[in-house]
Amino acid sequence: MVILGIDPGYGIVGYGVIDTNKKNMVLDYGTIQTPKEDKMAVRLEAIDSSLKFLFEKYKPEAIAIEELFYFKNQKTIIQVAQARGVIVLCSQKYCGNIYEYTPLQIKQALTGQGRAEKAQVQYMVKAILGLDSIPKPDDAADALAVAICHSQTNQILK
Amino acid sequence: MVILGIDPGYGIVGYGVIDTNKKNMVLDYGTIQTPKEDKMAVRLEAIDSSLKFLFEKYKPEAIAIEELFYFKNQKTIIQVAQARGVIVLCSQKYCGNIYEYTPLQIKQALTGQGRAEKAQVQYMVKAILGLDSIPKPDDAADALAVAICHSQTNQILK
Repeated sequence: MVILGIDPGYGIVGYGVIDTNKKNMVLDYGTIQTPKEDKMAVRLEAIDSSLKFLFEKYKPEAIAIEELFYFKNQKTIIQVAQARGVIVLCSQKYCGNIYEYTPLQIKQALTGQGRAEKAQVQYMVKAILGLDSIPKPDDAADALAVAICHSQTNQILK
Repeated sequence: MVILGIDPGYGIVGYGVIDTNKKNMVLDYGTIQTPKEDKMAVRLEAIDSSLKFLFEKYKPEAIAIEELFYFKNQKTIIQVAQARGVIVLCSQKYCGNIYEYTPLQIKQALTGQGRAEKAQVQYMVKAILGLDSIPKPDDAADALAVAICHSQTNQILK
């Protein structure tokens, strides 16, 4: 199963694509970045069109998106949530199989411990996916983590 | 000039369409409502398609959207902002002439007083548009108010 994981944002959207049927599961990971100097409407449009490109390229059967929490994003919550709305809409139009996970669920799925440190989660991303190093930047590693969380939660990972 | 005003929300989106070149300026007003029992992704998709219908029907040359503030929407800020992101994206794809106004700017434009009561703003919506009664529900009146605010601010209202 091809899973696209997304770490929502408006300046940086992390993405990670895995195929649970392949030995080397990682198909792609990276970030969509939008310029600070652009108006929010233009940045949202850029996120939308970049996501469409990823959807068409990888044809994910499930899309796993990290949930937002106010306490983690106090200053930018409105902007981040606006971008997340665009990401959810685009995902819904593309396939409709959207799954949402809290940071706690993601940590629990990857490390067995809801209070795990970021470094521990990143280490597990590297280990589970058999990578030589921790994926960079953090947003891409976080997106791979939510994709793995979905595969683990649904017990479809080998 | 045809202006579409929008009061953002996820359960109820208010809209109001005015044409500043006509004596009876109001072309339409109302709400887009999404069912509570639907998943957020489905609700966002419903908002997107209803807005497209309005854009195609009225071909607005400008879209005026009320800004969000955390203190006014504490409990639902993430959901409201997600819907607003979808509204901004849809507006951007349709015409790109997006204008955003704070509640203070809207009150100021309609009543000359940034601290005006809601009832006073609604009375001015009725008076400026020459309506027999205050538009209902409040979300539709608020959307007409932001459309009028744009026309006043840009001095294009006769």
